[in-house]
Amino acid sequence: MSRGLVVALSGGVGGAKLALGLSRVLPPEELLVIANTGDDFEHLGLSISPDIDTLTYALAGLDNPATGWGRRDETWSFMESIAALGGETWFRLGDRDLAIHVERTRRLRAGETLSQVTADFCRRLGIGPRVLPMSDDRVRTRVRTDEGWIDFQDYFVRRQCRPVVRALAFDGAAAARPQPEAMAALQTGAVRAVVICPSNPFISIEPILAIPGLRAAIANCGAPVVAVSPIIGGRAVKGPTAKIMQELGIEPGAATVARRYGNLLAGYVVDPVDEAEVAGLDVAVTVAPTLMSSLAEREALARVVLDAAGRLSRGG
Amino acid sequence: MSRGLVVALSGGVGGAKLALGLSRVLPPEELLVIANTGDDFEHLGLSISPDIDTLTYALAGLDNPATGWGRRDETWSFMESIAALGGETWFRLGDRDLAIHVERTRRLRAGETLSQVTADFCRRLGIGPRVLPMSDDRVRTRVRTDEGWIDFQDYFVRRQCRPVVRALAFDGAAAARPQPEAMAALQTGAVRAVVICPSNPFISIEPILAIPGLRAAIANCGAPVVAVSPIIGGRAVKGPTAKIMQELGIEPGAATVARRYGNLLAGYVVDPVDEAEVAGLDVAVTVAPTLMSSLAEREALARVVLDAAGRLSRGG
Repeated sequence: MSRGLVVALSGGVGGAKLALGLSRVLPPEELLVIANTGDDFEHLGLSISPDIDTLTYALAGLDNPATGWGRRDETWSFMESIAALGGETWFRLGDRDLAIHVERTRRLRAGETLSQVTADFCRRLGIGPRVLPMSDDRVRTRVRTDEGWIDFQDYFVRRQCRPVVRALAFDGAAAARPQPEAMAALQTGAVRAVVICPSNPFISIEPILAIPGLRAAIANCGAPVVAVSPIIGGRAVKGPTAKIMQELGIEPGAATVARRYGNLLAGYVVDPVDEAEVAGLDVAVTVAPTLMSSLAEREALARVVLDAAGRLSRGG
Repeated sequence: MSRGLVVALSGGVGGAKLALGLSRVLPPEELLVIANTGDDFEHLGLSISPDIDTLTYALAGLDNPATGWGRRDETWSFMESIAALGGETWFRLGDRDLAIHVERTRRLRAGETLSQVTADFCRRLGIGPRVLPMSDDRVRTRVRTDEGWIDFQDYFVRRQCRPVVRALAFDGAAAARPQPEAMAALQTGAVRAVVICPSNPFISIEPILAIPGLRAAIANCGAPVVAVSPIIGGRAVKGPTAKIMQELGIEPGAATVARRYGNLLAGYVVDPVDEAEVAGLDVAVTVAPTLMSSLAEREALARVVLDAAGRLSRGG
């Protein structure tokens, strides 16, 4: 396997599974994960970064495999108690999970950047690969529904994705600066692959690509960009990807996700059930199981993706 | 028993015991507790009000009888997790207790006063009597040690009262406005007794009396002021009262506490072991057990204090 840096773009659950797979087949210094922060929000006065946290917990082995979010061995005393005080309970914060939000909020208020806080948490939790926010500036995904624009977590958690999505916007993205370390890495010429994890393209990957300079840096980094389809047989493995695509007038499918990424993609990994659907695409398709139910499957898919990138690098 | 409002001045543990006793022998509308906020501090980015919380938990039956602070049936997942993230752990915040700090911090930042937040928490927790902070303005007790001035919780919790206390100061007290509802109550003429609970005079009661206007309003409210000694046989029931007195050059004893309150006091309740010591004081002494180990003893002492005030009111 050729050496060089692998840059992965990731949202939460699905992306974190592949990021974990990559972290187990690569030396830590060869993996850099750029995380979506469009889902970040302030709740109960705390700064919450759901995708960074899901990645952090997954890479540290602290994730909750039953829920896909939050921590394993969690307790819920805080939530019970805040309900009695009239606090909001629609966003579930476990007692262990709360620690990362309280300490992050304290450090951000003290002047640290989200990058610095995230790097320190990763170091303390024994995570080798770098996890970087797409930007240290505030970007907030907003959802236009028939009732007007609402905040992403309001749509995603409080309303449980029930409102029909008419449009998405990434407030602050146009003025946000890309995370400097991520940009520097992309510009070194040392990148051997960019992996777009099987996250929701609209709400997890496109906010990253909307940061000025970041999409161009990826396109020009000299390495192939390989995406893994988040859609299997027309359905999302988890979350509202398929529902959002339908509501935006896009047929939910592996092919339409690839078309959405457009000429950024050199390679595309799809599940066997979608092989026929993507036959006509102008992209190098690799067919492999993408569900990643087990750790072994996460590692296997990571190898598939890296091999695909390797073949594309050699012009194969 | 005569009717009218009873105003109690209280710090944390010892004061909360008597406040609970008073709350069980008085109709809720006849008890108003003014709480010390000099111990308040900001920790992990949270606004913490230890004495208000100890009172709130005691009056709601949520207090931890083993520790005297915090909540019963507590869990500690948050503390375990924040330690792993490098957060500070010297001030123990249980998962349930954390809810009151997070929600208070959120509401204070949103513009509510400490009085409003406290009143709402008390209402939601089913507490009948009013619990009011001495002021909605920031007052911070500071301790001068041989190493210089340090914050109160730094002295009290982190350093476990080990440094020698050379002086105390209540930063912000001179500019703080007394809590308006407390002032109004004292000025109505409807007060039948002011009770100084058996809290540390130097760090729990004197900050209250240092708020401009409050001591005078108490002195002029037309009702007798009755204190319960926090010292039994030269020792504090809990906390550093006796140690601080020694370090400040004051002999630790029931008599010196009464002298410290000076002409504010009309009545003084002391434990039987201290009867001889307070014989020479110019104050109406009542002798009664003051340890309050059980709920029944808290109620009994509350009745003793109210009876003493009643006798003083009738000039008896």
